[in-house]
Amino acid sequence: MFKLFTAPGTCALAVHIALEEAAAKHEIAWVDLRSNAQRSPDYLKLNPKGRVPALATPEGVLTETPALLAFIGQSFPDAHLVPASPYEFARLQSVTSYLCSTVHVAHAHRPRGIRWVEAADTEALEAMRRNVPRTMGECFEYIENELFAGPWLMGEQYTVADPYLFTIAGWLESDGVDPSRFPKVLGHTLRMKERPAVARVLAQLPA
Amino acid sequence: MFKLFTAPGTCALAVHIALEEAAAKHEIAWVDLRSNAQRSPDYLKLNPKGRVPALATPEGVLTETPALLAFIGQSFPDAHLVPASPYEFARLQSVTSYLCSTVHVAHAHRPRGIRWVEAADTEALEAMRRNVPRTMGECFEYIENELFAGPWLMGEQYTVADPYLFTIAGWLESDGVDPSRFPKVLGHTLRMKERPAVARVLAQLPA
Repeated sequence: MFKLFTAPGTCALAVHIALEEAAAKHEIAWVDLRSNAQRSPDYLKLNPKGRVPALATPEGVLTETPALLAFIGQSFPDAHLVPASPYEFARLQSVTSYLCSTVHVAHAHRPRGIRWVEAADTEALEAMRRNVPRTMGECFEYIENELFAGPWLMGEQYTVADPYLFTIAGWLESDGVDPSRFPKVLGHTLRMKERPAVARVLAQLPA
Repeated sequence: MFKLFTAPGTCALAVHIALEEAAAKHEIAWVDLRSNAQRSPDYLKLNPKGRVPALATPEGVLTETPALLAFIGQSFPDAHLVPASPYEFARLQSVTSYLCSTVHVAHAHRPRGIRWVEAADTEALEAMRRNVPRTMGECFEYIENELFAGPWLMGEQYTVADPYLFTIAGWLESDGVDPSRFPKVLGHTLRMKERPAVARVLAQLPA
């Protein structure tokens, strides 16, 4: 039994979908970011980083979305969510790592610029926010034109990279990027919503 | 046979060391960042991201340091650079993902702030740079006090996370952080330099 610590609007959605796709027994713990619950002493004991997602497993707590996605895929091989060959697995990981360290980071400069400058430095925060439509647009041009194999992100096989792309693509509009610039990604989002596992997860999101 | 595209002073050093530790047959291609060779048409054909590292393998080109480190470990199981169990592998990956998406990103706000604001926005760039000693210091407090198991980063077993920590710890001084604040990490750096594979790689770095 796993327990996923998650919050609406975060990349933890990708992990939630992966658990559901893998038919992994799990429960969900919603962490209320509005009341800063991710910085509470109890949560920090569980995850000293004070972020979501965190996945409590019988062996211990794991963090970081790319690590969790690969872990779920490897723990439930019958779901075929990660390829077995080292090269194909590395191709998948190069994509989840890019989504995490480049695309998610580009996005975070809008809502979470205080990770990198002082909260009082409103001009620098505004300069960061102003650039997000450009940087996120560039990331998705690369995804649309270079990465996306179709019908799923990595090709014929649906993998854990798909809920991750779906999650981050869901931030485009609020990041000031018109999703219709990226028809392949847009088609992917629509296909994702048709998957029963995705629909089940979306139905669970708190209002 | 692998070919690693790398440049001095970058995180590709971790991949270079991992290849050497795995006794993987490889050659090195130095990409001259000073002449912007990573943006040349030939290199962009190989790696459209225009960055290092990139690893050319018989099956294709792979990018992103955490993906390359796991790939090298899995491709050379006799070197025991990654654990076999999904949970222990995920623990390792949570560390390499953190080094990539949080620590490396914190560092990059000093030399590469133009990834996130306009080059002309010198005040925002300066605000970012000013914060790097604080953010890198916080990252290494977490590494020193929470992550570091010893004698190697993950514990008794030397893994691909070790050259990655070694590489990023090497940036502390130029990031304005006194490495002596972190005695475990400092001891790790010294132990790393005693490893024959590390010494061989350091001896190859261009002057």
